[in-house]
Amino acid sequence: MDVLTVLNLGDFAHAFSKMGMFPVFDVAYYIVSIVYLKYEPGSVEVSRRSPVASWLSAMLYCFGSYILADIMLGSSPIDYFQYNSHILLASAVWYLIFYCPLNLFYKCVTFLPVKLVLVALKEVVRTRKIAAGVHHAHHAYHHGFFIMVIVGYVKGSGVALMSNFEQLLRGMWRPETTEILNMSFPTKASLYGAILFTLQEAHWLPVSKSMLILAFTLFMATSKVVMTARHSHGSPFTLIESWVCHLLFGSPLGATEDDHHPPAAAAPSSPLKTKEDLGEGARKRKVKKAE
Amino acid sequence: MDVLTVLNLGDFAHAFSKMGMFPVFDVAYYIVSIVYLKYEPGSVEVSRRSPVASWLSAMLYCFGSYILADIMLGSSPIDYFQYNSHILLASAVWYLIFYCPLNLFYKCVTFLPVKLVLVALKEVVRTRKIAAGVHHAHHAYHHGFFIMVIVGYVKGSGVALMSNFEQLLRGMWRPETTEILNMSFPTKASLYGAILFTLQEAHWLPVSKSMLILAFTLFMATSKVVMTARHSHGSPFTLIESWVCHLLFGSPLGATEDDHHPPAAAAPSSPLKTKEDLGEGARKRKVKKAE
Amino acid sequence: MDVLTVLNLGDFAHAFSKMGMFPVFDVAYYIVSIVYLKYEPGSVEVSRRSPVASWLSAMLYCFGSYILADIMLGSSPIDYFQYNSHILLASAVWYLIFYCPLNLFYKCVTFLPVKLVLVALKEVVRTRKIAAGVHHAHHAYHHGFFIMVIVGYVKGSGVALMSNFEQLLRGMWRPETTEILNMSFPTKASLYGAILFTLQEAHWLPVSKSMLILAFTLFMATSKVVMTARHSHGSPFTLIESWVCHLLFGSPLGATEDDHHPPAAAAPSSPLKTKEDLGEGARKRKVKKAE
Repeated sequence: MDVLTVLNLGDFAHAFSKMGMFPVFDVAYYIVSIVYLKYEPGSVEVSRRSPVASWLSAMLYCFGSYILADIMLGSSPIDYFQYNSHILLASAVWYLIFYCPLNLFYKCVTFLPVKLVLVALKEVVRTRKIAAGVHHAHHAYHHGFFIMVIVGYVKGSGVALMSNFEQLLRGMWRPETTEILNMSFPTKASLYGAILFTLQEAHWLPVSKSMLILAFTLFMATSKVVMTARHSHGSPFTLIESWVCHLLFGSPLGATEDDHHPPAAAAPSSPLKTKEDLGEGARKRKVKKAE
Repeated sequence: MDVLTVLNLGDFAHAFSKMGMFPVFDVAYYIVSIVYLKYEPGSVEVSRRSPVASWLSAMLYCFGSYILADIMLGSSPIDYFQYNSHILLASAVWYLIFYCPLNLFYKCVTFLPVKLVLVALKEVVRTRKIAAGVHHAHHAYHHGFFIMVIVGYVKGSGVALMSNFEQLLRGMWRPETTEILNMSFPTKASLYGAILFTLQEAHWLPVSKSMLILAFTLFMATSKVVMTARHSHGSPFTLIESWVCHLLFGSPLGATEDDHHPPAAAAPSSPLKTKEDLGEGARKRKVKKAE
Repeated sequence: MDVLTVLNLGDFAHAFSKMGMFPVFDVAYYIVSIVYLKYEPGSVEVSRRSPVASWLSAMLYCFGSYILADIMLGSSPIDYFQYNSHILLASAVWYLIFYCPLNLFYKCVTFLPVKLVLVALKEVVRTRKIAAGVHHAHHAYHHGFFIMVIVGYVKGSGVALMSNFEQLLRGMWRPETTEILNMSFPTKASLYGAILFTLQEAHWLPVSKSMLILAFTLFMATSKVVMTARHSHGSPFTLIESWVCHLLFGSPLGATEDDHHPPAAAAPSSPLKTKEDLGEGARKRKVKKAE
């Protein structure tokens, strides 16, 4: 009976890991990403003044992970733009979110129950991207474990890692807030995920890849849905991280990376800090004001 | 009779599109580009303090389009530097413009009638670059229409698209003035040109490539010569753009992208705004003052 | 007798140019590089707040030359990260320098006699990298002399050329201090070295490559050891450079690139100016204060 359960779970995990992402999951990914872009200060003005810059920003939000991974592996950074249907779909989402009459589309997708579903679907895509990135790097460098982690990491984090340069496109420059320095939850989780998938690829983790995909997807989707629903920006890693950092790197205990800013840097960066972790209320107010 | 005329025009367009660019047209391109570099605030001081930085800036001005296109297609960004004769020629032009005794060379090439000819020749090269960029991208990605437009665009715009980073080489940083956000006429025209050449390459435009090259060259050369002669920085696209942007993107009518800056950003950026669109008088005064 | 001496010197030079760099010389390179990183303002705080950012900075300091050369030649920028043992070694050095109890390791390696040996060993690696970079570029572009110089140059200069972006990783942005604009001694020497090795590769220099490696290594090691021992940041090129720049580029005589800043830029940049050329005393005080 127990064996059967495991077998069934294995089958389910396998089927889940083979499930196509296009178009349903991808559309959810585009919607959530571009909604986050609309939360960014200044993005609505830019969409009015310079549609080209706004479109480029939206493409970076949707395809930043492919661009970064292609750069890391020495391919053409715009290689993914050969998939015209994906680009057109993302462009349609961008158009609907920024220019739909009465802001109808935006209001629908940010209605909390809808948004929670979309957020969960986005995490499914993120996990798949990490796994695919690690696998792709493994194919190119059989024993390049660091390369696997890096490629998986950029595949999971996407635009967050180049947010400084994405902001530049919108005429902003905030050198004090680099994502590497103040990692948000999805960026951190992508790093840990990339390490896990690399260990699995190197056969140091006694678990099948499809099972790991299933488990990591469940963890990410649950975490993000709970965080979105509770407007929270804590991280489930805080406790263990603060102990590990204390032991290994002598960081002061109890101070997570997020609230341990030097006072000078904290003042200007705090209202803008981590894109995806801002409370919903504050964001909506900002977007409304901007329109 | 009418058929004959068309035939002759076709022959002429074909011959024109096969005409070699090296060295006459290329030299004109280098001269106009490096003269625009000399107009930039601070470039003359840099040429005295650090010839290496000045030379690098000049190379970016002359070969920025090749560098960007190579990056976009995943090749070596300095691939074009294998053509020693082109680099030496551009270096000679750079030396003459910045260090010629009595500033003689600079005075000659910025003498208005000479300059108008050079500007016209530069636009011939630009159009060829756009066509070559689209063709090259078509070769690499047969159905990658977005890639074709992007590569043609960067081939036409060149250094303008990386002006922020080129300025950094000269110790400046002006994040509020990215070219994408406030496109100058040549950048916009390159975008439209890249779209046209992509449509032609995809056989959606019922016109031969050589004819399109001829027509686009004539349009660009005329526009730029008229704009240079009249010290104007208007754009022939303003009217149609403002209507299209109003209909599609809800931009306020009558406000072109250029004079619709938010007040905060406009103040510091206005005197430096678009490199190639500044009135000649203002520029010359600046350059004279700097010497 | 004289012939014999030459023969022996040639043999010695050949043996020297074939000597393996891993692990002794490489470890010296990593140690000196990461010590320089620790001298940088803010790096100790970053190592406490965000070990990931600190580790990435350290990797850029150790492998920046490989990353830049790979970018220049169109390969994967993280190609070198496939050598796990090198990365692990550099990571261990990073850990020991930043987190060793009582700061013991750092104190040992910055003890002047030890440091002088390490600095000399680092210059051995630098010369080898320049030679390898030029050779590699020669292999890819047989007549691309400019490419050879550029690749050799970035191989020798390493992280210095991307210091602006490395600082960004630590939340800093100082656009007025680009390395190209104010070249430090190692960067300049790398440029001259790259030119020499390119001339040798093109058979325009009547000397064998191993002999050139030996001579350039001796020059670099001697210069850097003397400069480190005397806490000096002069450059042996100053006199000849100021004359050449005066003749060729009309730079005012007697003003080296370093003290010819425009007053506005000099004020903020002077205390931070050139990383590797700061007096030891000032640096140590800074690092102590930060801990």
